[in-house]
Amino acid sequence: MSASKGRVLLAYSGGLDTSCILVWLREQGYEVITYMANVGQEEDFEAAREKALKIGATKVYIEDLRRIFVEELIYPAIQANAIYENVYLLGTSLARPVIAKRQIEIAEKENCQYISHGCTGKGNDQVRFELAYYALNPGIKVIAPWRIPEFYERFPGRPALLAYAAEKNIPVTQTTDKPWSTDENLFHCSYEAGVLEDPNVTPPKNMWKLTVDPEDAPNTPERITITFKHGIPVQVKNNSDGITVSDPLDLFIYLNTIARRNGIGRIDIVENRYIGIKSRGCYETPGGTILRTAHIDLEGLVLDRQVRSLRDQFITPQYSQLLYNGQYFSPERSVLFAALLESQKSVNGEVKLKLYKGNVIVEGRKSDTEKLYDMDESSMDVTGNFSPIDADGFIKTQSIRLKKWGMSV
Amino acid sequence: MSASKGRVLLAYSGGLDTSCILVWLREQGYEVITYMANVGQEEDFEAAREKALKIGATKVYIEDLRRIFVEELIYPAIQANAIYENVYLLGTSLARPVIAKRQIEIAEKENCQYISHGCTGKGNDQVRFELAYYALNPGIKVIAPWRIPEFYERFPGRPALLAYAAEKNIPVTQTTDKPWSTDENLFHCSYEAGVLEDPNVTPPKNMWKLTVDPEDAPNTPERITITFKHGIPVQVKNNSDGITVSDPLDLFIYLNTIARRNGIGRIDIVENRYIGIKSRGCYETPGGTILRTAHIDLEGLVLDRQVRSLRDQFITPQYSQLLYNGQYFSPERSVLFAALLESQKSVNGEVKLKLYKGNVIVEGRKSDTEKLYDMDESSMDVTGNFSPIDADGFIKTQSIRLKKWGMSV
Amino acid sequence: MSASKGRVLLAYSGGLDTSCILVWLREQGYEVITYMANVGQEEDFEAAREKALKIGATKVYIEDLRRIFVEELIYPAIQANAIYENVYLLGTSLARPVIAKRQIEIAEKENCQYISHGCTGKGNDQVRFELAYYALNPGIKVIAPWRIPEFYERFPGRPALLAYAAEKNIPVTQTTDKPWSTDENLFHCSYEAGVLEDPNVTPPKNMWKLTVDPEDAPNTPERITITFKHGIPVQVKNNSDGITVSDPLDLFIYLNTIARRNGIGRIDIVENRYIGIKSRGCYETPGGTILRTAHIDLEGLVLDRQVRSLRDQFITPQYSQLLYNGQYFSPERSVLFAALLESQKSVNGEVKLKLYKGNVIVEGRKSDTEKLYDMDESSMDVTGNFSPIDADGFIKTQSIRLKKWGMSV
Amino acid sequence: MSASKGRVLLAYSGGLDTSCILVWLREQGYEVITYMANVGQEEDFEAAREKALKIGATKVYIEDLRRIFVEELIYPAIQANAIYENVYLLGTSLARPVIAKRQIEIAEKENCQYISHGCTGKGNDQVRFELAYYALNPGIKVIAPWRIPEFYERFPGRPALLAYAAEKNIPVTQTTDKPWSTDENLFHCSYEAGVLEDPNVTPPKNMWKLTVDPEDAPNTPERITITFKHGIPVQVKNNSDGITVSDPLDLFIYLNTIARRNGIGRIDIVENRYIGIKSRGCYETPGGTILRTAHIDLEGLVLDRQVRSLRDQFITPQYSQLLYNGQYFSPERSVLFAALLESQKSVNGEVKLKLYKGNVIVEGRKSDTEKLYDMDESSMDVTGNFSPIDADGFIKTQSIRLKKWGMSV
Repeated sequence: MSASKGRVLLAYSGGLDTSCILVWLREQGYEVITYMANVGQEEDFEAAREKALKIGATKVYIEDLRRIFVEELIYPAIQANAIYENVYLLGTSLARPVIAKRQIEIAEKENCQYISHGCTGKGNDQVRFELAYYALNPGIKVIAPWRIPEFYERFPGRPALLAYAAEKNIPVTQTTDKPWSTDENLFHCSYEAGVLEDPNVTPPKNMWKLTVDPEDAPNTPERITITFKHGIPVQVKNNSDGITVSDPLDLFIYLNTIARRNGIGRIDIVENRYIGIKSRGCYETPGGTILRTAHIDLEGLVLDRQVRSLRDQFITPQYSQLLYNGQYFSPERSVLFAALLESQKSVNGEVKLKLYKGNVIVEGRKSDTEKLYDMDESSMDVTGNFSPIDADGFIKTQSIRLKKWGMSV
Repeated sequence: MSASKGRVLLAYSGGLDTSCILVWLREQGYEVITYMANVGQEEDFEAAREKALKIGATKVYIEDLRRIFVEELIYPAIQANAIYENVYLLGTSLARPVIAKRQIEIAEKENCQYISHGCTGKGNDQVRFELAYYALNPGIKVIAPWRIPEFYERFPGRPALLAYAAEKNIPVTQTTDKPWSTDENLFHCSYEAGVLEDPNVTPPKNMWKLTVDPEDAPNTPERITITFKHGIPVQVKNNSDGITVSDPLDLFIYLNTIARRNGIGRIDIVENRYIGIKSRGCYETPGGTILRTAHIDLEGLVLDRQVRSLRDQFITPQYSQLLYNGQYFSPERSVLFAALLESQKSVNGEVKLKLYKGNVIVEGRKSDTEKLYDMDESSMDVTGNFSPIDADGFIKTQSIRLKKWGMSV
Repeated sequence: MSASKGRVLLAYSGGLDTSCILVWLREQGYEVITYMANVGQEEDFEAAREKALKIGATKVYIEDLRRIFVEELIYPAIQANAIYENVYLLGTSLARPVIAKRQIEIAEKENCQYISHGCTGKGNDQVRFELAYYALNPGIKVIAPWRIPEFYERFPGRPALLAYAAEKNIPVTQTTDKPWSTDENLFHCSYEAGVLEDPNVTPPKNMWKLTVDPEDAPNTPERITITFKHGIPVQVKNNSDGITVSDPLDLFIYLNTIARRNGIGRIDIVENRYIGIKSRGCYETPGGTILRTAHIDLEGLVLDRQVRSLRDQFITPQYSQLLYNGQYFSPERSVLFAALLESQKSVNGEVKLKLYKGNVIVEGRKSDTEKLYDMDESSMDVTGNFSPIDADGFIKTQSIRLKKWGMSV
Repeated sequence: MSASKGRVLLAYSGGLDTSCILVWLREQGYEVITYMANVGQEEDFEAAREKALKIGATKVYIEDLRRIFVEELIYPAIQANAIYENVYLLGTSLARPVIAKRQIEIAEKENCQYISHGCTGKGNDQVRFELAYYALNPGIKVIAPWRIPEFYERFPGRPALLAYAAEKNIPVTQTTDKPWSTDENLFHCSYEAGVLEDPNVTPPKNMWKLTVDPEDAPNTPERITITFKHGIPVQVKNNSDGITVSDPLDLFIYLNTIARRNGIGRIDIVENRYIGIKSRGCYETPGGTILRTAHIDLEGLVLDRQVRSLRDQFITPQYSQLLYNGQYFSPERSVLFAALLESQKSVNGEVKLKLYKGNVIVEGRKSDTEKLYDMDESSMDVTGNFSPIDADGFIKTQSIRLKKWGMSV
């Protein structure tokens, strides 16, 4: 088997699909280097390394991207209150830019002319990976086997892959297929396909991997305080035991830990994929759910009304949409990001939360530096600097156009 | 005391403030008719009627507006997924148009030149009531005592009102002031002012009136199924006991009942009032919280992606903002409403929910009539009508501008 | 030559490309029926009919769609102030839905399994036609020869088509290629490609077909008055000669006539095609340019401020984008259209215009029915109903949040 | 007359109104310092200085703000394509922040407790000035005589002011009132009120001050080339005579000169004032009209499609609205400005224009640095890197949701 066709950097998971792709690519005449990104998923990376080498990879890269994932993708998403179709916190979308960027860097370093992945031909991830590849390296060539007829016609289902694995001595650890597929990273775990394809089927209790069922969570609430600077969490304090965490990566991992044990962050939706197909997904986003609640709450205290309105109507939906649609590496992201950062300058303070059986309950918030909230001004009892007569003029002025309309209808 | 100055229709609650206003208005030379709207609040309407007559009202109107409130305001808000600043479900805002409209109708019938209310001079409600009055009857004159210096300077606080009540023989039932103020209707109950003015103070457990504390809610979940037609709930079925409700008003009351006993719908926020002051409010919206979750979920199944995007980016925020800002009776509402109704034509189907200690958990959804979701098409295993090669062209085409950008940076 | 492969309805222009396509389709084994839409372009339809029959069409449809084009596409675009990327009035986009709809109707009537067109593989029109076809008849099969390798590789340029025409006895009227390509209809004429591909080349004076050069237009202005009802023009009066036109189609044709002789409606832009390629186009939209100016002006007089703002930020860009991107037959159009119609209810009145050497100059406007403009209220000299003290309260209230911000920076 | 009430910095124009205000303020017991901003209006500043001192000003400030006006307000407005209600280029709005900011600086330097202006109580300018004052100096006190009953009731019209001037020895230069009022600066001249209050009255030919009537403009066009860097004009070249200007202020003045003699930049509209009153205004914006046309055109060549869409749907309307509504000094401006600057990084290149009797005609554009436009890719004749088969997949993918919709209606 020669490598006359060139060198491919394959995004490799160690599973059946990408192992078969590895061997198939070699069969087609490519040299294959594999690349695994550690974005926080539970995985035996060393076993995957050995397996890749065993079945023909000439080199294996395993990269710990967890810190960059948290700092460059997750926290800005928190600043943006990013959400897709009112519900989905974009966990898979957020990891893709980090993974793709390192893959391109390695491909360039290793002089790979090709880059490959095991995404299906109907999903969002193929779009997210490839648009990132092309934006970062417009000359790169992509091999997407699940969109190549000679591949997908040869392997119409799992049995064909298993037969190929047997034939090619590819070790298979998981002999029976799971009744759904998952994608896991530090931010979330997703579940789709299989039994979930009927949107009226309730997800089985044993499906959820990261969080305990709210019904099984502790009967006693936990209380924490999260401190934000410029909209980014800089400290979490567990008010029950005094544990305090402030390193960005550790902080997020710690939030995950307490959210998971309190059953926080499960959702179940039917969403619109970028390519126009509806699909059902279940997601667990434990720490992210807490951060989102806390961040939105703090903004109530410290964000100007018009800035909030601009952010909500403009930055949040556009930023979320570009994440979902795989257009993170794009000029519009730079424009939105400049606005986002400016909007977060005043988002400084702390939020007290109670975590209880799936609930994230705000119990108070304060800011020592931002003074938009004024107790006297807000008070219904104290006049403060506000003269009620001003409200009179405000209302009369606002009524001018409405009176005109009232006279016309 | 003559009525030479004219006739006033006063929005009357039976409480200390509006009772003093009633007497003060008569003292100023007005004839006073009182008006109470039943929008679902817990209230002794008959006691209020007697009290108003006792202290000088020449006529008393008590109007049951619950059905119109549910059908004309609450359900369209559900269709619109209406929400203010990401959190507040607009419970007070929603009742105002219904109350104001009937008040104008009665004022016109009774030939009142004036209309009056007991709202403070710093809040949102004065704006909501008066903009509605002016739009519905541009010639009406408004008397807002809490913005008239001779009134608010004479009654700088509760003791002055109590003294006036004693002097004028106004019966006072509640001798001590509550440490917060509330506004209740069928949709929600709000809490603000008093001890809540410090945004870092956790609301006291005994404050919440409508819902049980999630910690005290039953340990066994309840399961219900809600059926929607054109985005409006037309049936609720309790899957535990088989109870089924379909009358619009009864349905909403029933949802409130089950939501309240399961601790659903509490929030606590700092929001931006229309007049530019930040204020802290706590709200309970039991049934509304369930409906919102169910409606958003069903839209995932049956709403076209672009329609959803339009609705989310334009209709939801604009409709919510005009409700909050008291501009329901306005030409822009008609424009938004036309779009909203059109968007909801396909929102038909049912959603299965589990209610458990504050959580509203979606367990499945289906639609017998809307077919945007296609299991084969969605499936990762079945090709369906979709050719993976099409995705190839889709991605390549989307990448054109990103490659150009990638070459330029 | 048998027709065993099935029956095709080909959108036929009579030109070299679609004539070759007709013959080529027959060569491939299809039966071909041709379809020409008269949307106001200058064309010898009878010559095209004869040519189609001569080269093998089994049937020829020539449909006068001008009235439906004006009433269903052009006038709503005027109501919406439709414009793409600030400049382009969407002339080509507007004709496509009308043409595609009739094509599908005929295809269904004639039991054609296939539908075909001569659009190139890089442009917008292929998208506009085909998305319309698929939305109107999801089962239809499209043959787009310029995207089929065996076609476009066989005919890499005009000489190959000419050779094929010679070989197949296809009559060729225009022996030399024009240095640009055009698309004409009642609303506009477009020019692109060829010498225009260098965006820095000034369009040659003899390129413009519909309008006289402003420099050659009359030295004496013409004055007209346009009357609108619900945002739609219902009468044009030429104030110089008293000519009055009110039939919808005649009115638009008349506006074109006077606009063309006064050099109105030329533009030259670089735009972003839907597929992501930038392209340079020159366009003449004579009557449409006058109507747009007049409609926008009248809205100033009769549209509520918030309705205008909603329309400008929401309806105009979204409606324009869906026209450009070929998504006229879509659920989102219905939503936008419902809002558009509601917004135009008050757009009643007339506008006086002066037309002079490329300029459309507003000279006044009035409305006998809409009364939002109030001379006394507007006057700087008369107080009217407005109390200056109200403005005081308005400003003070608006300043609350800005003072808070001023104290914080 | 003592100054026991404190010191006022009065925005002074030298005209009848502000001269009477000056004397009246002194009569009320204030010390008055006057402030005139030179923002490019035609004015005898020295005569105004002498007059102010003669009638009692203790000090006079005359500040040349033209450069800062051009660089900080006008050019960013060009970058933003700022426009209000589709037509108005915001000339008055743009000058207000510059004027207000210097006024506050001087007030602070001179320890003035008060600031005053001569704006009427119905217009936009009172709002623009005062919101700027309050944001820049939240503690400043504003005296707005035209909103103080004892002032405006004493001076109900021009005759009363003239009588007061005679009584107080205030020199009056203009003895008869103009039939409209104007506001002039480097960017524009506005005309409103008086005979213009009837929106159907055509503005008299002699009203327009800055520009020649297009009918009287030269019969020979002038041609210029404007070079932009980051969306800001950095050079204008007159292609007829070779004159080249690049200093920011000189460049804008030069553009005004050539625009004025070619009759460019007149508009006539009915607009919605911030306070909700409709008002008719005529405006001349000569140089600004040329710049806007050129900037929009260049963006077609060099701006990414999504960036343009974001800018058009969010930045342009929001930035325009905050300028019009006097909220330039606000946190939301910072957010929008960050996005605006980022969006303009690639707006580099030059535009060729023909100026002729009111028309600004684009004749070509190029950019040596930005390469988003690709002649081969754009070409209908050359395939370039684009494969027509990709368009096939693009269209098929886009059609998925539309086919589903087509099957459902």
